Amino acid sequence: MGYERKEIARTPGYKQGKQPTDAGVVKLNTNENPFPPCRAVIEALHDIDPESLRRYPPPFADAFREVAAGIHGLRPENVMAVNGGDELLRLAITTFVDPGRTIGIIEPSYLLYRVLGELHGGRVVGVEAASDWLLPRDFAAMMNREKAQLTIIVNPHAPSGVLTSDVALAELATRLEGVLLLDEAYADFVDPSRGYNALKLIDRCDNLLVLRSLSKGYSLAGLRFGYGLGAQGLIEPMLTKTRDSYNVDAVAQKLALTALKNRDSARETWKKVREERGRLRAALIDLGMLVPESESNFLLAQIKPGAVSARRVYQELENRRIFVRYFDHPRLRDHLRISIGTVEQNDRLIEELKEILKG
Amino acid sequence: MGYERKEIARTPGYKQGKQPTDAGVVKLNTNENPFPPCRAVIEALHDIDPESLRRYPPPFADAFREVAAGIHGLRPENVMAVNGGDELLRLAITTFVDPGRTIGIIEPSYLLYRVLGELHGGRVVGVEAASDWLLPRDFAAMMNREKAQLTIIVNPHAPSGVLTSDVALAELATRLEGVLLLDEAYADFVDPSRGYNALKLIDRCDNLLVLRSLSKGYSLAGLRFGYGLGAQGLIEPMLTKTRDSYNVDAVAQKLALTALKNRDSARETWKKVREERGRLRAALIDLGMLVPESESNFLLAQIKPGAVSARRVYQELENRRIFVRYFDHPRLRDHLRISIGTVEQNDRLIEELKEILKG
Repeated sequence: MGYERKEIARTPGYKQGKQPTDAGVVKLNTNENPFPPCRAVIEALHDIDPESLRRYPPPFADAFREVAAGIHGLRPENVMAVNGGDELLRLAITTFVDPGRTIGIIEPSYLLYRVLGELHGGRVVGVEAASDWLLPRDFAAMMNREKAQLTIIVNPHAPSGVLTSDVALAELATRLEGVLLLDEAYADFVDPSRGYNALKLIDRCDNLLVLRSLSKGYSLAGLRFGYGLGAQGLIEPMLTKTRDSYNVDAVAQKLALTALKNRDSARETWKKVREERGRLRAALIDLGMLVPESESNFLLAQIKPGAVSARRVYQELENRRIFVRYFDHPRLRDHLRISIGTVEQNDRLIEELKEILKG
Repeated sequence: MGYERKEIARTPGYKQGKQPTDAGVVKLNTNENPFPPCRAVIEALHDIDPESLRRYPPPFADAFREVAAGIHGLRPENVMAVNGGDELLRLAITTFVDPGRTIGIIEPSYLLYRVLGELHGGRVVGVEAASDWLLPRDFAAMMNREKAQLTIIVNPHAPSGVLTSDVALAELATRLEGVLLLDEAYADFVDPSRGYNALKLIDRCDNLLVLRSLSKGYSLAGLRFGYGLGAQGLIEPMLTKTRDSYNVDAVAQKLALTALKNRDSARETWKKVREERGRLRAALIDLGMLVPESESNFLLAQIKPGAVSARRVYQELENRRIFVRYFDHPRLRDHLRISIGTVEQNDRLIEELKEILKG
């Protein structure tokens, strides 16, 4: 017999992407930044005062909030630090959604949204993304009709990498009656020439909560550090009530602060990822795949019909120690999601793909 | 207007103890271990491979689970790592308690139990601790009558430090119809001569979940690392479903593993804390206070009636840069909770107390 709640027992739970650790693997399956974290972060790690391990960490990560607010042109009251972006997703759901009430999402997108919503006992309403992976038509009206207390979207979209404009987001946030959680886990990789900036909407939309993460943009997935940005009325109940009281450890706070202060170093990796993104996309298109333009650090490649199936390509790549992501979802069964690697990793991927698709 | 749920809006939230950071402060208010973490942990910190920051951490902290299981004579399936003990408290509540159903606690104890229970929408039933701070009479029967899905107790008890025997715990777990969460955050400081060992009950009680923490025993409060021990049927739903999918970062995993492997070093601090506990208790009793025998790293001192009030002593100490904890709770208004410090810190506390109580 089990003691867990019925909602928990019947939820399948989230399945993490494979995390192989053996050397020689080309790991393009969980969207890590292929470049190492900046040197200042490693130096900060070596400089950690043992005393900061012995004592409880600053409970509100105020030093980090100060720096993040400065960078984004907001006030510290608009910022909260979380133990990885997943924590903010959970906090938004538990803080703003009553059990039984509606959480709106777009499908496909990050699988965890639905899992977290169902674990909370929320009613998760998934609306299919448009054929170009942009927002579905009348999305705000649909959400309002369902009385969604929270709507979660990821931009650039995952798993396609397609960017919704901040103009469209402004309209969405303004029309929505509930909270809009905008997951910008990949926003660092948007080409600056697109002029995208959703954070400027925080001042005019009291229902807009933006999630940022250091996992991808700052090459710190192992550190578990993200942050939320939004009106004080959204941040405060999570910061002072629903959050675990010391949610972010002292090492993570110090390293995250250092990473943000040394943003220029991370910015160089964003540029390199964008360059490789363009090159890899062209190569995949050359191989007969359909690949939407991505503003993220991954590409969604649709395999040519009639040739080798996507699942087969995925397995063949894994046999050759190259890991990409395959999703068993109706709209994705002929797709592969491929994280942008280093030049060498991408070269190897392209070579192997050529061989596999030949055969 | 606020977007947060009514339950959240009306909950006051948990208030952390003060965390002053200025040098010269004698900080005896949040039960940190006064001795630094062991050298091997600091060396492990300096040896962190930047690659382990770039990548996602091992999702289940399997290496840590293996070592912890070995130390406690259990299997890895009986262990899960959490981002500080608070996370396990929250997970137990969200996993085992339906909103509206009962969570049983003893009062006073750790204030967070009630806060987390209420945030979840649970019905928190607090039963007053016996006059000697042990379990209330007929506690199991009371909990069963209330149909408690989860009962949370801390042993050694906080804030008194009094130890309930494992025999009494065995009876409680056996009689309870719901889950028993036994918070052993302070168990490392129990005198070995007491022969206390509640972990051996895990094999026979499928409803017993034990919380351990590295915050106190291992001088790692800043790292946020705890772990849960229990039957696989209790651990699994939290490990694979309700837990955030990468809840413990790579640095914390490595340092926690190192700390456990170098337990002998921590054990020396436990011994020193016990010695100082005895000495400080005797000194407080000499000052006319009533101080129950504590098996924890703090003492609960009841100030002599008619003399200076406990709140006044607390404030006077703070004026002299010595921080202890005062709780505005009916049974605690004439008490102070004092963490055991180093010899020098305890000496200074005793000197200042003498002065304050004179006046």
